[in-house]
Amino acid sequence: MVPTVIKVGILERLNAGEVVIGDGGFVFALEKRGYVKAGPWTPEAAAEHPEAVRQLHREFLRAGANVMQTFTFYASDDKLENRGNKLTFTGAQINEAACDLAREVANEGDALVAGGVSQTPSYLSCKSEKDVKAIFKKQLDVFVKKDVDFLIAEYFEHVEEAVWAVEVLKETGKPVAASLCIGPDGDMHGVSAAECAVKLVKAGAEIVGVNCHFDPLTCVKAVKLMKEGVEKAGLKAHYMVQPLAFHTPDCNCQGFIDLPEFPFGLEPRILTRWDMHKYAREAYNVGIRFIGGCCGFEPYHIRAVAEELATDRGFLPAGSEKHGSWGAGLEMHTKPWVRARARRGYWEELKPASGRPLCPSMSTPDSWGVTKGDAALMQQKEATSQDQLKQLFDRSK
Amino acid sequence: MVPTVIKVGILERLNAGEVVIGDGGFVFALEKRGYVKAGPWTPEAAAEHPEAVRQLHREFLRAGANVMQTFTFYASDDKLENRGNKLTFTGAQINEAACDLAREVANEGDALVAGGVSQTPSYLSCKSEKDVKAIFKKQLDVFVKKDVDFLIAEYFEHVEEAVWAVEVLKETGKPVAASLCIGPDGDMHGVSAAECAVKLVKAGAEIVGVNCHFDPLTCVKAVKLMKEGVEKAGLKAHYMVQPLAFHTPDCNCQGFIDLPEFPFGLEPRILTRWDMHKYAREAYNVGIRFIGGCCGFEPYHIRAVAEELATDRGFLPAGSEKHGSWGAGLEMHTKPWVRARARRGYWEELKPASGRPLCPSMSTPDSWGVTKGDAALMQQKEATSQDQLKQLFDRSK
Amino acid sequence: MVPTVIKVGILERLNAGEVVIGDGGFVFALEKRGYVKAGPWTPEAAAEHPEAVRQLHREFLRAGANVMQTFTFYASDDKLENRGNKLTFTGAQINEAACDLAREVANEGDALVAGGVSQTPSYLSCKSEKDVKAIFKKQLDVFVKKDVDFLIAEYFEHVEEAVWAVEVLKETGKPVAASLCIGPDGDMHGVSAAECAVKLVKAGAEIVGVNCHFDPLTCVKAVKLMKEGVEKAGLKAHYMVQPLAFHTPDCNCQGFIDLPEFPFGLEPRILTRWDMHKYAREAYNVGIRFIGGCCGFEPYHIRAVAEELATDRGFLPAGSEKHGSWGAGLEMHTKPWVRARARRGYWEELKPASGRPLCPSMSTPDSWGVTKGDAALMQQKEATSQDQLKQLFDRSK
Amino acid sequence: MVPTVIKVGILERLNAGEVVIGDGGFVFALEKRGYVKAGPWTPEAAAEHPEAVRQLHREFLRAGANVMQTFTFYASDDKLENRGNKLTFTGAQINEAACDLAREVANEGDALVAGGVSQTPSYLSCKSEKDVKAIFKKQLDVFVKKDVDFLIAEYFEHVEEAVWAVEVLKETGKPVAASLCIGPDGDMHGVSAAECAVKLVKAGAEIVGVNCHFDPLTCVKAVKLMKEGVEKAGLKAHYMVQPLAFHTPDCNCQGFIDLPEFPFGLEPRILTRWDMHKYAREAYNVGIRFIGGCCGFEPYHIRAVAEELATDRGFLPAGSEKHGSWGAGLEMHTKPWVRARARRGYWEELKPASGRPLCPSMSTPDSWGVTKGDAALMQQKEATSQDQLKQLFDRSK
Repeated sequence: MVPTVIKVGILERLNAGEVVIGDGGFVFALEKRGYVKAGPWTPEAAAEHPEAVRQLHREFLRAGANVMQTFTFYASDDKLENRGNKLTFTGAQINEAACDLAREVANEGDALVAGGVSQTPSYLSCKSEKDVKAIFKKQLDVFVKKDVDFLIAEYFEHVEEAVWAVEVLKETGKPVAASLCIGPDGDMHGVSAAECAVKLVKAGAEIVGVNCHFDPLTCVKAVKLMKEGVEKAGLKAHYMVQPLAFHTPDCNCQGFIDLPEFPFGLEPRILTRWDMHKYAREAYNVGIRFIGGCCGFEPYHIRAVAEELATDRGFLPAGSEKHGSWGAGLEMHTKPWVRARARRGYWEELKPASGRPLCPSMSTPDSWGVTKGDAALMQQKEATSQDQLKQLFDRSK
Repeated sequence: MVPTVIKVGILERLNAGEVVIGDGGFVFALEKRGYVKAGPWTPEAAAEHPEAVRQLHREFLRAGANVMQTFTFYASDDKLENRGNKLTFTGAQINEAACDLAREVANEGDALVAGGVSQTPSYLSCKSEKDVKAIFKKQLDVFVKKDVDFLIAEYFEHVEEAVWAVEVLKETGKPVAASLCIGPDGDMHGVSAAECAVKLVKAGAEIVGVNCHFDPLTCVKAVKLMKEGVEKAGLKAHYMVQPLAFHTPDCNCQGFIDLPEFPFGLEPRILTRWDMHKYAREAYNVGIRFIGGCCGFEPYHIRAVAEELATDRGFLPAGSEKHGSWGAGLEMHTKPWVRARARRGYWEELKPASGRPLCPSMSTPDSWGVTKGDAALMQQKEATSQDQLKQLFDRSK
Repeated sequence: MVPTVIKVGILERLNAGEVVIGDGGFVFALEKRGYVKAGPWTPEAAAEHPEAVRQLHREFLRAGANVMQTFTFYASDDKLENRGNKLTFTGAQINEAACDLAREVANEGDALVAGGVSQTPSYLSCKSEKDVKAIFKKQLDVFVKKDVDFLIAEYFEHVEEAVWAVEVLKETGKPVAASLCIGPDGDMHGVSAAECAVKLVKAGAEIVGVNCHFDPLTCVKAVKLMKEGVEKAGLKAHYMVQPLAFHTPDCNCQGFIDLPEFPFGLEPRILTRWDMHKYAREAYNVGIRFIGGCCGFEPYHIRAVAEELATDRGFLPAGSEKHGSWGAGLEMHTKPWVRARARRGYWEELKPASGRPLCPSMSTPDSWGVTKGDAALMQQKEATSQDQLKQLFDRSK
Repeated sequence: MVPTVIKVGILERLNAGEVVIGDGGFVFALEKRGYVKAGPWTPEAAAEHPEAVRQLHREFLRAGANVMQTFTFYASDDKLENRGNKLTFTGAQINEAACDLAREVANEGDALVAGGVSQTPSYLSCKSEKDVKAIFKKQLDVFVKKDVDFLIAEYFEHVEEAVWAVEVLKETGKPVAASLCIGPDGDMHGVSAAECAVKLVKAGAEIVGVNCHFDPLTCVKAVKLMKEGVEKAGLKAHYMVQPLAFHTPDCNCQGFIDLPEFPFGLEPRILTRWDMHKYAREAYNVGIRFIGGCCGFEPYHIRAVAEELATDRGFLPAGSEKHGSWGAGLEMHTKPWVRARARRGYWEELKPASGRPLCPSMSTPDSWGVTKGDAALMQQKEATSQDQLKQLFDRSK
């Protein structure tokens, strides 16, 4: 793989009609690899265990990703301080290490580096526009210093805060993408997906879309509504989508966080590579051209997206040297009935079993997470604090 | 992590009553990361992409593994030649690179290096004992040269071949473990699990057990039968188990290979970390002390095994610095109903949904892999060769 | 049970705020008992096997039904002639026998007799308003002669035809109810549920609602929309609902007929008595006061509706002499763990298993009913006619 | 249907190689119709509501049954007295009425009347052989007086008691059938199915088999083991099977009573008519010639058995006048995709969905019926008695 010295920018690519493939979710992937703690979800591994972060970047690059997002999710100083146990590295060290890793791997292939900001605790605790914007500005310092290629304001539940983020990011002069973690029903304040998109474009975002919280087809549906809204308003934009790699037909508007399986029992919901083919095609058909992934995406998921779009893009990703399209690698299997699976129709029509006959197909999203029976039990033996219980019982009324 | 200069050997550990934790399956994990091709399943990545293999070793070490198995599965010359496309590296180079990587990482912690041989195409094509043993001998050269700590004869469907392997491995003077890919119903020739174990112990294996092909509880059940057989025969041995990380209640005696989801639609069957706690405890209770994993095991699965056995072993694995036991990390979540999930009872009782309402809970294992309707269709449009079809129709009679 | 000599009419009851309980579906119940042929679904059993029809009426009466619908579904002469094999009785004989049976049993308790007309093949084949109305008029002759207590125009997919039916029925001077077989998405011409209801009320129907095609909660939702429409238009009406006793979350707008299980594989979808409690309460809460059932309802389903509404109505149905509320009858079971099921909470929270691990939770409604593979196979061996196959393949393009 | 004046006896039929079709379960069917109370399950309806019992007999006769079992289950005086509320009729009146109804309908067709005795509370409370036999003798009085055609000792969990029953029944000189409610694992004392059958044949039973408690294929498997046992012992017998019409793959040895769905949530487990075809064929292939049903069987289930065996028997049942084999009645449906379901292959391969995405495929049989959380809750609010709770908590230790 020869490094590309002069990179074509994100907007030039999208303006030229290219498909840009994003990477997958670092937080979930590195949690399974042992480098991120579920709960705080902070990215100190960028400084502590750079080899692990570098390797994951490389795998997504090999899988076909054109964008290396810096592993800086929740890397603001206040978040890092709140995570419970003291860290060896400062926030600045972690952020800078993350930028260096993304740049190093991006330069091994045809990828751009994107720096990102996300929703802040400050907004949720009703701080002022000025305060919230100050937080975003501080996070931008590292990105500007390290000269990332473009910026993404992502994982916002409220379009108002996302607009503030876009306004701050725009001051850098770099291209800005804005991605909400909403579904087709709009943001948490009841603003429709279409209106959200219009607000973001008017604030200056060149690329708008959604990420996280819902499964691929739900996210594509939300971006479709955004696109229709933008077009109806006579505006222009590019579109992006970076969904979960989990099936979530049973979510409420809060997304997968309210599913009882979040975050440690989501395995049966993981998408297959063939589900990813459907996703990539659907996203493409809707007119989305920045197509990536979020929590749950492993390198082979991104590779499936790149393989589905190979004819549209004109090339396969490097990682396809180790993958026969549509199961072609099974042609050499010793058993004839396994060889018979080496064809597209087989995998497209397969309805994979869960191997879990005591489990249901769908869950009921919860709003306070314990049944009354559980609560009674907790009271007797497992309650960790009186406060927690009080809260539970108050909510159950 | 301070390297252990003088390693305590596998038998000394087991004789002392220690729990030895194995690593997980490299072939499946590296397939998802983009470095192994499903179908041939060969390990040329050890030479081609050492950083990827090294990183996976490190993750299992961090997760608590005391054994680094060399990534040499299917690395015999004839297998490598048969894989379809020419490789840059010779078999010897691949095998040596694999040993070096395992040793390098093992020395970063308290782990031993194990070299392994597996069932051969030669045995299946009815070659003589002498021929088959010659193949094993050749594979041993590298392991002896690189001075691995012990040897594993694993993934044998027929105990006869495994006995031959043990007899060859014993000549090195190193400790020998023997692991069959069978379930409680015994080997493919109808030899009971108990009798298989007796034969292996008599052949000289100090450790016996099963790996791959079935889910954890099924494998534990098979090893339990082995142990009872060995004890009834008045013999002594240590026991090992390295199962799949997939639920397979619907397998026939051939294991997961005959499930329609193999190998690209197994996602809904992936075990959660909580399933792994049950597995580790059950294996321990049965008296198994070498407890690891095979296909489907990711580092977090091994970590769950190590966490379940932490009180028995007296310490947590390094990777637990990023994991709160039983979901404790969720205590800091912003939503109270997610915080209420930070307890053992919640995760132990959770019946995780698949998010796939069109899919069943179980599959029917197939023996020729296509329905009659599919076959008719293949004849018309998708058949890739007349031979393949003939075979399919012959089988369907 | 003492016969009520002078019956209080349907409108007087509803005006007084009473809950009127309907009966269940005769066609499905009698098919399972051996008296109705699935496919033609005609009611000749009223004349051929009156004891079977009388017994089913009695069971619904005992279960709490206040309405005996005459078993005259599809009893128009043209339908009866088209059913394939010749019948012993004329259409008039069948219709009259059905009225006599309903009246006989209604007089054994506090029930009214309702005569009904349904959608006609003539409307679907685009006959004129005059032609279609002539058919309804002819069907009314028997009802007038036998002096039924009120009339129901039910099972209409198109509100236009239902309006015509109401206009004809109104000429008798008897109270008229109008019930469409639609869901919340409105009729087959795209008229919304709200607008359908307004049209029917304007045409003179005193009671409006839906029956058949969807499960109880879906039907209640549709009637809720109807009620909102009628109220918004400043009109007044009473509301009725007579849904399926099958769970149909996966239906498209055509209802259960397009589910692959229709009509001979619907067993796993049958509602429990506890599902019926939820239905009855939900219907009541929405303001519906004529609450009954359609296909799939057995007497115990109606009894559950009557038991749920017993406190609202002030009495239990006669059939409750053989039923302890909420499983109270289990208190005397010999096994303590079965006795522990004698309580409301147990049954309300139970998620009943299907015992079918190879089956999914939901189906994909079909529009041409055979997969491509099936079609190929039919071509080879099972096609019953060239025409049928042609049709199938034409549709599959 | 012309009454057969001189009936050919049960043994003559079986000796001649005829297939004898049994009826279905009255207790469950009449509970749904409103005439039997779940819990006590007593048959006072024979005297209270003879029209309902007669009608159900007729439906099974029409469906093809050659045996009318008297509706006398649990009709011993002590059982009737224990049922909680006082009855209008004496035990003798109920038993005689049941015999008269069975005889009346049997004479309308080619059916025999069978009188039955079942396991007694006395045996379970460790009364002597003499006491238990006295109870059976008393129950025989009515059967002898009413001259039933043969006798069935059925629904025994312990072969010892069944042997006593056979010994008593043999004294009448009438043919005796003996049917245990066991599965392939044998009786509740651990006697194997094979040995149970040998004991019953030695005691004088001419027909042996199983009924109730398990699904059809499980019951057929148990009878197969019985047959092998009898043949191995050099004895001769005829075989009978009368299983549940519920899928119970998840039962433990106690059968469906320990499933959490028993008895009010079993709907999703109800067999389709197509499942019955498989059952009838499998029973026939195993060599069973008295094939009927128990709890859950409705008339259409028995008809499906008779239709499957129509070619073997040479005729269809009367009820098939209203049923096209394998869905043939759908050929006249208006929608082509429903017409495409009018073929055997469609229904044989259908995997019917439950329409219940929140429900699992299988349950865990319970042994004390409440989870610990439930128990804690019951303690606080729902416990109906201190004794009940004490019992629950004692069992949970």
